This record gives sequence, C-alpha cells and structure tokens, in this order.
Amino acid sequence: MTPDDALSALPRLRIETPSWGYGDSGTRFKTFAWPGAARDVWEKVADAAEIHRLTGCAPSVALHIPWDKTDDWPALARFAGEHGVEIGAINPNVFQDPDYKLGSVTNPDPRIREKAVDHLLECVGIMSMTGSRDLSLWFADGTNYAGQDDFRRRKGLMTEALRQVHAALPDGKRMLVEYKFFEPAFYFTDLFDWGAALVQCQACGPKAKVLVDLGHHAQGTNIEAIVAFLLDEGRLGGFHFNARRYADDDLIVGTTNPFELFCIFVETCGEGDIAYMIDQSHNIEPKMEAMLQSVLNCQEAFLKALLVDREALRHAQMTGDVLGAHRVLTDAFRTDVRPLLEEHRRRHGLPTDPIKTHRESGYAERKAQERGVALTGGGYPT
Amino acid sequence: MTPDDALSALPRLRIETPSWGYGDSGTRFKTFAWPGAARDVWEKVADAAEIHRLTGCAPSVALHIPWDKTDDWPALARFAGEHGVEIGAINPNVFQDPDYKLGSVTNPDPRIREKAVDHLLECVGIMSMTGSRDLSLWFADGTNYAGQDDFRRRKGLMTEALRQVHAALPDGKRMLVEYKFFEPAFYFTDLFDWGAALVQCQACGPKAKVLVDLGHHAQGTNIEAIVAFLLDEGRLGGFHFNARRYADDDLIVGTTNPFELFCIFVETCGEGDIAYMIDQSHNIEPKMEAMLQSVLNCQEAFLKALLVDREALRHAQMTGDVLGAHRVLTDAFRTDVRPLLEEHRRRHGLPTDPIKTHRESGYAERKAQERGVALTGGGYPT
Amino acid sequence: MTPDDALSALPRLRIETPSWGYGDSGTRFKTFAWPGAARDVWEKVADAAEIHRLTGCAPSVALHIPWDKTDDWPALARFAGEHGVEIGAINPNVFQDPDYKLGSVTNPDPRIREKAVDHLLECVGIMSMTGSRDLSLWFADGTNYAGQDDFRRRKGLMTEALRQVHAALPDGKRMLVEYKFFEPAFYFTDLFDWGAALVQCQACGPKAKVLVDLGHHAQGTNIEAIVAFLLDEGRLGGFHFNARRYADDDLIVGTTNPFELFCIFVETCGEGDIAYMIDQSHNIEPKMEAMLQSVLNCQEAFLKALLVDREALRHAQMTGDVLGAHRVLTDAFRTDVRPLLEEHRRRHGLPTDPIKTHRESGYAERKAQERGVALTGGGYPT
Amino acid sequence: MTPDDALSALPRLRIETPSWGYGDSGTRFKTFAWPGAARDVWEKVADAAEIHRLTGCAPSVALHIPWDKTDDWPALARFAGEHGVEIGAINPNVFQDPDYKLGSVTNPDPRIREKAVDHLLECVGIMSMTGSRDLSLWFADGTNYAGQDDFRRRKGLMTEALRQVHAALPDGKRMLVEYKFFEPAFYFTDLFDWGAALVQCQACGPKAKVLVDLGHHAQGTNIEAIVAFLLDEGRLGGFHFNARRYADDDLIVGTTNPFELFCIFVETCGEGDIAYMIDQSHNIEPKMEAMLQSVLNCQEAFLKALLVDREALRHAQMTGDVLGAHRVLTDAFRTDVRPLLEEHRRRHGLPTDPIKTHRESGYAERKAQERGVALTGGGYPT
Repeated sequence: MTPDDALSALPRLRIETPSWGYGDSGTRFKTFAWPGAARDVWEKVADAAEIHRLTGCAPSVALHIPWDKTDDWPALARFAGEHGVEIGAINPNVFQDPDYKLGSVTNPDPRIREKAVDHLLECVGIMSMTGSRDLSLWFADGTNYAGQDDFRRRKGLMTEALRQVHAALPDGKRMLVEYKFFEPAFYFTDLFDWGAALVQCQACGPKAKVLVDLGHHAQGTNIEAIVAFLLDEGRLGGFHFNARRYADDDLIVGTTNPFELFCIFVETCGEGDIAYMIDQSHNIEPKMEAMLQSVLNCQEAFLKALLVDREALRHAQMTGDVLGAHRVLTDAFRTDVRPLLEEHRRRHGLPTDPIKTHRESGYAERKAQERGVALTGGGYPT
Repeated sequence: MTPDDALSALPRLRIETPSWGYGDSGTRFKTFAWPGAARDVWEKVADAAEIHRLTGCAPSVALHIPWDKTDDWPALARFAGEHGVEIGAINPNVFQDPDYKLGSVTNPDPRIREKAVDHLLECVGIMSMTGSRDLSLWFADGTNYAGQDDFRRRKGLMTEALRQVHAALPDGKRMLVEYKFFEPAFYFTDLFDWGAALVQCQACGPKAKVLVDLGHHAQGTNIEAIVAFLLDEGRLGGFHFNARRYADDDLIVGTTNPFELFCIFVETCGEGDIAYMIDQSHNIEPKMEAMLQSVLNCQEAFLKALLVDREALRHAQMTGDVLGAHRVLTDAFRTDVRPLLEEHRRRHGLPTDPIKTHRESGYAERKAQERGVALTGGGYPT
Repeated sequence: MTPDDALSALPRLRIETPSWGYGDSGTRFKTFAWPGAARDVWEKVADAAEIHRLTGCAPSVALHIPWDKTDDWPALARFAGEHGVEIGAINPNVFQDPDYKLGSVTNPDPRIREKAVDHLLECVGIMSMTGSRDLSLWFADGTNYAGQDDFRRRKGLMTEALRQVHAALPDGKRMLVEYKFFEPAFYFTDLFDWGAALVQCQACGPKAKVLVDLGHHAQGTNIEAIVAFLLDEGRLGGFHFNARRYADDDLIVGTTNPFELFCIFVETCGEGDIAYMIDQSHNIEPKMEAMLQSVLNCQEAFLKALLVDREALRHAQMTGDVLGAHRVLTDAFRTDVRPLLEEHRRRHGLPTDPIKTHRESGYAERKAQERGVALTGGGYPT
Repeated sequence: MTPDDALSALPRLRIETPSWGYGDSGTRFKTFAWPGAARDVWEKVADAAEIHRLTGCAPSVALHIPWDKTDDWPALARFAGEHGVEIGAINPNVFQDPDYKLGSVTNPDPRIREKAVDHLLECVGIMSMTGSRDLSLWFADGTNYAGQDDFRRRKGLMTEALRQVHAALPDGKRMLVEYKFFEPAFYFTDLFDWGAALVQCQACGPKAKVLVDLGHHAQGTNIEAIVAFLLDEGRLGGFHFNARRYADDDLIVGTTNPFELFCIFVETCGEGDIAYMIDQSHNIEPKMEAMLQSVLNCQEAFLKALLVDREALRHAQMTGDVLGAHRVLTDAFRTDVRPLLEEHRRRHGLPTDPIKTHRESGYAERKAQERGVALTGGGYPT
C-alpha cells in the first residue's frame, strides 16, 4: 500500500482499552498503589476517554463485572457517550468468588457451575443495557495436580456451559472464548490453547469466536500463524494485546518484540470483524502513560503492516524467493512511520505527540490530587 | 484395577517399533556409526522381530519409504511373518528429495506438490501390499523466515493434498496426521500443533486421525490433556513415543519424566484403536538395547496406569479432594511393578529379564560381526 | 547403599518448612482463604511442629520478616523449642514496601537502598536472637522494560549491599543468595540465574552461598547439573523445594517430575552443609496436608537416592556403558520404598502413615474451628 | 550520539564471517545442496572476501579445523590478504571423529581426552601460522541420560583440558569458551550456560573469555543482561551471531527479534575487545545473500545502538522515569537508518545497496556454474 493509501486506511484501527487497566494492579507479591489510579467505573471511563482524546483510535472501553458494576447501566453508557467513548466488551468474572476455588463452569459441584453460568447470563443482559457487542470469556478453570480432576468430564462441562451462553446471545452479539497456556492453574487449564478454544466454539455455533491474548502461549509459539488459522476458519474474534518475555507478563504492547506485533497485524489488517483490545497490567509505571504507549504501539504496528507491498510479497512467495519475500516485510517494518503518524494526527486534529501532550497536560497530577492513593477498585488483590 | 486384572489386561498393549530405529541415526553434527546397525529393511525387520521375541509386546514394525523400499512387498510381509512380526504403519518421506527444499505438499510449485501427493498415494498402495492399516504422515513443510510464504494459502494446499490421500484410502485404513512444534522449519511449520492437525483431519473425513509425538510440543505442554481432548473428539490415531527435555530430542521413552509417560497411559489405557509406536533416534547408545528399553518402559507405564484405582479416583475428584485424587495416581505410580512384570513374562514364556537376556544372548555382537560398520540404510544424513 | 545402610542414613535428612506456608497464599488473581490457616507466627510455629511430629524430619521452621515479627524473639525461640522445633532461616522482605516499587538494594534512589540494607542488617540481628544460622536472601529487584535501568550499575549496587550484609554476619552464620529467572520483574532480574548469584557470592566472601529454588529456572534447565557445579565450587547453600511445570508455580514438591527430584538428591545426598527448605504456595489444597506431602516426597526421593548403587554407577560410567549407568539410577528410582519408610517410622516411633494419621487426627478441623477464616497473616496480598 | 558521530563510529564494527557458512549445511533431516556452494577453504575465503567487498565491514573469516585444513597455512593467509580479508578465529572440531561419541575432553577414556587436547593444541599452532588472535572453543561434550556420567568429574576434566590450552597460548592470543544450552547432548552439556563457561575461564586465567552464541540459551533468556555481566567481569570474548525462535535454529541474524539484537549492541557498543562473529546455517536460502543479510542486519543494529541518547537515558534511569528511559531506547530503534547507511557507504566507496549490487553482479550464478553442486566441504553430514 502506498503511504497515502495507508493513511486513508489507518482510521480503520479501533483499539479498545480495558477499564481494569486504569485501576491498580500487581503481581502476587505486591500491588503498588498509583496516585490517581481510577477508583470506580466512572473514573475508569473518564480515563479511557482521555486516552481516546489523545489518540483518536481508542473509542471504546471494556468492562469487567462485578468490578465495574453499577446500578444504572444506561446512565453509564450515557456518561461514556458524553465523554466520547462507547462501552465495549463485557468481561464476566468467574475466578474471584471463594466458590470458584476448584473451578467455575467445570467445577465438580453442580451448584457452583450453575452460579457461574448465571453470572455469565447476567453479563449477557448487561451487554444489552450497555450496547456492547462482545462477551469476553476468560476462565481460570483448571487443576494444579495430576489426577485432581478428569479432563474429559471437564471438557464436557465447559461445552455445556458455553452452549447455554451461546443460546442466550441476541442476534448480532458474539462471545469471545479466550484460552491460556497456564496460570492461575499450574497443571491443566480447561481452555489451554487455541485448539481447545476452537473445538468449544465449534460445539457452540457461529456466534462463538476465539480470543487471542498475546501473553497466553508457550514460549516460541508462532502467534501470527494461529491468527491466520483462526481467520481462515472464520473463528478469530479478537485480541487481548500485551507483551511478554516469560509468562503472562502483561507488559505494554510491543515492548519485547515489536517485529512480532507487526507480523500479527500483517495477518489481520485486511480483515473486518476483529475486536482489538488491550489487556495489560501496570505494576510499576504510570497507568495513563502506559495505556497511551500501548495504543500508540498498536497504531504504529498497524500502519507498518498497511505499508507492506502485498503484490511484491506475493510475487516473491510464488517464485520461491525466500529472502526477497522476507525483505518485503522488513522493508515495511524498517520504515520510520512517525512522520506519517504526525501527518495523520494533524489531519484529524489530534495531538501530534500524544505522549508529550499527555505529560504536559497535567492530567496525571490532577487526578493524583483529586483521587489520592486508593488501593481499591482495581480488582486485583491488594 | 487389581494386580490380577491388570495382568490380564497387559497383553492388550502392542508397541510398534520403527524400522529406522535399527539403522544409524544422529544429530545434524554427526551420525556415529554403530557396529551391527541394520543395513536394509530385511535386517531391520529381523531386529524388530528380536525385540518382539524378547518382550512379547512389539509385534509389528513401521516402515519408512523409500528407505525401506523393496521390489517385492509380499515377500517382505512373508519374511516378517516368518519372523513373528507384522508390517505396521507406512511412513512416506516427503522431506529428503532436493525438490522439497521449500516444502512438499505446500510447496509454491504445483509440480512439486503433485510429486509429493503421488508419493503419498504410492504409499497407500504399499499399505495394501503389506497389510498395513495406517499411513503415518509427517511433513517437514514450513518456512524459516517471516514473510517467506503465506500461512493461509499453505493451509489450503495442505487440505487439498490430505483430501486426495483420504479419498484414496481403502475401507478400514486410516491416515495419521502428525504435527510438530518446529524443526526442520524454524519460523513456521504447516502442522504446528494438535489444533492445526485436528482442523485438517476434520476437513478430510473420518479416516483421518491425529498422531501425537511426545517430542513435538512446546516446553511445558500438558500432553496428557491433548491426548484426552483428541480421544474425546474421536480423533486420536496414535503415538510416536520418545523422550525429550529440550526439543525433539528423540531419546529412549520415559527417560526424562516417567511420571508424564504414566499420566499419558492413564488417559488412553481404556481405549481401543490407538497405534502405540516408538519413534526415537539412538545417537550414542546400543540400538537394540535402546529399543528394548523403550518398549519395556512403555509396558511398565501401561501396567502402572492399569493399576490406578479408577473408582477411588473418581470419588476423590467428585468430592473435591484435590490431594486424595492426586495420591490415587501416585500410589499406582509408586508401585514397583517389576515383580508383576516378571510374573507376566513367566506366564507367557518370555525372558523374565529381557535386558539381561539380550545382553547375554550375544545378538548385538553377532550382528556387529555379520554386518560390520556400514553407514548406510539409516536414512539419516551421514 | 544397602537398604539397611540407607535406613541408617535416612535421619540425616532435615527438611525445614516455611512459616508462610501455613498462612494463606494465592496467585495474582485471588488468594482463597483456608479455614484454619495460621494467623500469626505462633500459630505457624505450632503448625510446623505438628508437621515435625508427624514426620520426624522437619525439625525447623523458616521465618519471614516482617510477616513474622514479634517483640520478644527469645520467647518465640523458647516457644518453638517447647513444641519440638527450632527457628531456621530468617527471610527478610524487601519487596512489599511501597518504596521498593523500582527495587530495593539496586533502586536508583540511595535512600531506598539504605533502607533496604538496614532491614537486611536488622534480620542479621534477629538471627542472633533466634539462633538461626542462615540469612535467606531473595530480591524481587529487576526491571520491566528494556532501557529502564542500567544492568552494570545495578550489578555493582547489588555487590555493595551484599558485602555490607556479609561483613555483618557473625562467625558460623551464612547468607544464602537466591536467584530467579523472572517474576515479579518481567524484563530483567538482578540475580537472574545461578551464575549471577555465584558471581555475587564470590565478590562477598566465604559465608555467601547460593540458594537453589526449584521453580526459578528457565524451561528445560538441568537443575541437578547446577547443583553439582555449585557443590563443586563450594557454594551450594541450600534449596527452596517446590514443583513447577510452567513458571514459579510453587506446587507441592515432586508432583510434576518425581524423577527430577530424585536426580537432585542423587547429587547432594553425600554432602553435609546444605539447608533443605520447602517454599511453596497452597492455593487450592489443604495447607497442612500439602506441607506434609512435600516433606514426605522429599524423604522418599532422598531415600531412593541413598539406594543408588554408587559403585556400579561409577563402573558403568567409567566403561562407557551409557544404558547400564542409566539403569543403575532407575533401578533405585523404581524401588517402592514405602515399606522401608514404614520400617523407619516404626523404629523411630513415628506414625507409619503420616497422611492417614493427620487426616484422622482432626487437627485441621480443630484449627479451622479455633482460628476460623482469617485472611491475614499470610503475607500475600489478599 | 548524533547521527554524524554515529557515522564516524560506525567503521569500528568489524564482523567476522565463518568459512562454514559458505559451504552446504542442513538439519539432521537433510542437507540441501546449493549450486555454487564453496567446496574448499580457498573458495570459502574468496566468498568471504566478496562479502567484505560488498559491505566494507566483514574483514576477516573464521576457519574450522579440520574442514579447512591446508598444507600451507602461510599461503592461505597470503591468499586471504590478496583478497582483502584476514584469517580470523580458529575453530577446532572435537565432535565429528568417531572417538568422540561419548565426549572429547570430558570423555571417560583418557586416550580420547588426550587426542582431543592434542587437536586443540594443534589449532593453537595454526593460530600462529595464520595470524589469528582467537581460538574459538565449542564442545559438543555432554550426556543423553541421567546417570550416564558424573557431572563433577567431567567438570574437573574440562578444567584440566582448558588449562592445558590456556598455558599454550602465546601472549596476545585468547581462547573463547562457548557454552550451549543443549544439542547435540540432550540431557546434560558440560558447558551448559554462561555461568559454567565463566567458572571454567576463571579457573584458566586472563586469556580465557566467554563466547556468547545468540542461539544457545533457554527460551526467554535475557541475553543482553548476560552480555552486560560478562563485560562487567572482564570476560566477554565475543559473539556468535544468528537468530532463533525455538532452539539453536542458526537463522539469519536479526530475523526473529531485531529489537533484541539492538539491545545487545546497546550493551557492547562502547567496548573495544569483542569478536563479533557470525555463525549460522543456510538450509534453504542462497548462501551469499544470507550472509550478506546477516552482516547488514548487524551493521544496522549497531548503528541504531550508537544513536541512543546516552545522557538522556542515564537521566531517565536515575530519576526513575521508567517509560521515559524505555522510549530513549525505542526512539533510536525506531529510526530508519537506511539513509544514514547509504551516506556511510557513499563516503567509503561501497555499494549503496549491497543486496541489489550482489543480485545484479551475477556472482552467485557465476559460482554456480564454476563450482556446480558439490555436496562436500561444508563439514555438515550430507
């Protein structure tokens, strides 16, 4: 694509930021409180709106239930709208209630399974009230010890639960089924990879899609290949973007291997119906700036992916020109797209250097003063 | 299962040894020649027969085409029968011809794809002439560099080729589709995990099953869970057994984590239609003894899996007794089954200590003298 | 070693349990409260004493400061003594104070570094008051992003701090320097592997030894080789035992690969001055039973290691008998040592089935009633 | 550094290419013959000289003995000089003689150990005759099975051998001790990580330095941190550059994670005495172009590392500005240095687009015609 065409295509990218990224989060060892961290859903939405104001490409915010529960969903949707953003994916929580110690929808106890499904269905209801399209499903379900439970029975229970949710989805809504290699389960996770998630989606129906979180794979996994396979099967629902070197480190997107992020966008950038969502933890860095950086890193990778000369790529591939084909990709990646991005921002009336604008705006300091240090609302154990 | 019942069930286990395990093999750095290594398919079959004589549970031998090609397949089958073994799975080779440098069935060049499919179909023909049930398909197809080729086009080409093979399979025959995390392709492998293999099998039909090689996974992968999922989907075709700590190390089965091997047998041991095959390389150790050890390690793990108290296991699982359930498994694993195995061998007229019998038999020394050191016939580069 | 000699040598094994293993712990997603979990250091010591009563081989308990802080250390030591156990290693905490967000002894801020060193020196003082021999040092220090800080400056700061602590150690005391591959730092950890820890110990002096935590390595790492190297360098101080499949999973010792645990004991079992400590988290299983299981799994692995026929092993090794040597090891591992352990327990007046005795004793239920569900005292974020 | 200063510093980078990279190489499954691959050391040196002609920064070529053995070393050095390059590191081979099946310098058999040391000393002699400064030592020594040999005895044997070599080194010469996580040994490698190599170097003396091969680490390892630690200890001797995603994939440098390559150069670029060597295999791609690409990727990463604003970096680090510091690095990495590199090449009379020049030169086609397809001389099993 020419730079001009790429600039025209760039607004197609819409990144969704997560409400929980604006509250405090941490590791199992410590959650460090950040002065000004959002304390409730209203503050989180306000923060998300600020990120959208700065970038122009983060127009929606994902919610996590019950962390973000409110009595008046329409009011929240209105509040968001007034701030320039929409309510995005609804994320149920079936891992923090004491009942879920041995699992939620695959728990051996039918009472607990029912409770979990009820919560999922409650979240389907919230989707309608907030105008969300996607139900984003992550299960911590799994086991810690060989023999602890039966893989196949659990597989059946998972199918059963997901089918109930699928059946309850209104037309035009989707459920995104996330998988994870491990953590918090350390022997077996019920949805342990994309294959496990895909099989469950197949069992449910066409509204079930797979959600790819960049931190949920074994070391060395070629994520862009998984993305391509899911696209080909018509089952790629969306992403949880973050970065990792080791496990599910949940770092700022694109910070450990920006080339990999680019390769992922190379696979998806021609496609329509994918939810690009950020899911990361900020343990030691300023929350707003971290989120901003992630959004900008996604945008940069997407723009570079747009710049790939697809015709030259295809020609090199078809003629077995291994290194020529590789260089078509790296040529786009090597391009310094910062001038193009500035041009894009100028055209759309956005700050040309969003980080600088943010730092100079005093937003973070103002919120620190208003909100103080409040170790609640993040959702993470503190 | 009681020890008595386990002894009755033990003969159900039939391990298939690979012809290529009797020839020389090595790493990319060196293939060390072993005096007495089999030089052709006849010697390989003879060696396999010796392993079966010693163990009573290795009644078939897998062939690799064209390494094991012969002009007279019926003669080979007869020869095998006279030696007490059958011809097992047929393994085509679509990775050593110079044409396959950029792939076989997913090669950008249609002429090469056709050549590869022709070879696969030739192997279907050999199945009929040798009485084999399974076509065992491993593809080295993949790429080394980002951009080198198009994931989705290759996925389609793989489907196309596999469907042709599936269509050619006579009734009662199966094709086993093997996946591999990496090597010899180091960026992308067309069938990179069980999910990729499963999707291809679904696209082909009911004769297509997935083959699990224990060395073909990312670090940390819970293989027994994959086995359970494939069983549940009716798509587990069989195994390539070996051991690994790092990559596809192809060591003697059960030598790095015998508990994992046991857990895998715990999943499968009630099931019928699974091909238990060994696939390992012997780089520094005596070939026959190495193969013998692998067969015995499988047998031991299978017997321990039979001893698991399934009722107690299920009860502990259903009542959420995490550690109780785990201990049901480890109780079986802790059991020293060597006395039981001796009893089994005595009952079936087998050597009670197959390793000792082999070492004392002089077989290895005799073959070393007969065959000498001949660095051919293994199939591996020398 | 003959079984008789092994039984005589078995009492040499002294496992230290950690105070924090008796309180609540969890993952970053959730700490599930366990009814009866110890709420303060006195209850933790009492629980540790119960484990020792059941096993006879867990005669000391490690403390974590400030979680276990008390006004009267001599009283605590007396209390422990009256309950039949000693105070073991002192573990400082330089990772949970808000000041340590960017590091403790390698923090860019000299005030914070000084604060951290002061706390370490305070712990040296506690060692004297409690009769502890070992100061057990784990640092969460590290960075999350490339460029965040300077590796070499931090290395120097670490040396500086450790030297101050080393200088303060009275004769006969030791400092154990723990390393960790990652977590909670996700880009760089100051003591990222045994080599980094060894270099620091060399810079300090002879009282500095390396501590090996089984969960703190990259996938595939051969831990027994590291153990052998450190022993050879005279720098193995001790262990933190636990099990893992993925990251620092902190599961019950020996549950993912019992053969690896055995191989580690094969390296150490002739050596004197090693602190064998357990460090694990119990997220979903009964705390006391989990600790008990870990102690028993260590004991079993140690006994099997004692049974290795060292002479036969050495002979096979020296004659290049690869498989013969391997089988000497597996012969010992395959042995069912449960009868021997029963014999040992009978001789020493211990419960012959400690798990059963514990389950029947009602200890857990009694403590649940006495202590209730109290989500404090564990030290982990709740 | 300003772009101008960076351009002045750029010529400091001298990359050494390996003779074996010009011959055929492959995986254990297949070595594909490349038309025009160099068949002997003279052709390899000529190819290396061509790479230097194209890039101006690859002025030396490493040799592998005995693959590159010649009767007249001075003649070879003269030949190299006439072609514009020097003889670089000498690489002994103690892994392909049948005697080395169970190891070379750590073999249980003293005769074989002596043979190996003799070969190493022979190579020290070749260093003098060729004007090489570095002896580059890689050992395949290790074991495949637990128990196969004794870690500590082998450690002592390694020390013994290395000390003999160190003692034989003339003044001004160095020995570079390479480590490797695994392969071709799959249970234990004698020099399994940088810590093991460092301990051996310490035991030898000041001429012993550690060699870092980018492909020889566990997944997730932070290589730049190891580099920094070795620099700080005065023990970083040099690099073997290549790329990997999985194991020791030996791909073209910088192709899987260019940001990691950049971070490594950020650590080293102010330092003097480091041997920057390429070590890669070309299995499916044109050899000359692949080597060229690797050299250029190194040069680009080095130039970007020079551009890092060190003062701003240090300031951000010292003030705890986590993201500011990270961005100083990424600002340099994001820079498109292709125009700067063109300028550099113009200034030095080099082709401004070396790949294009090479492709248009007809060098590869000419050599293919001259040399044909000759599957010898590569050193790898064919």
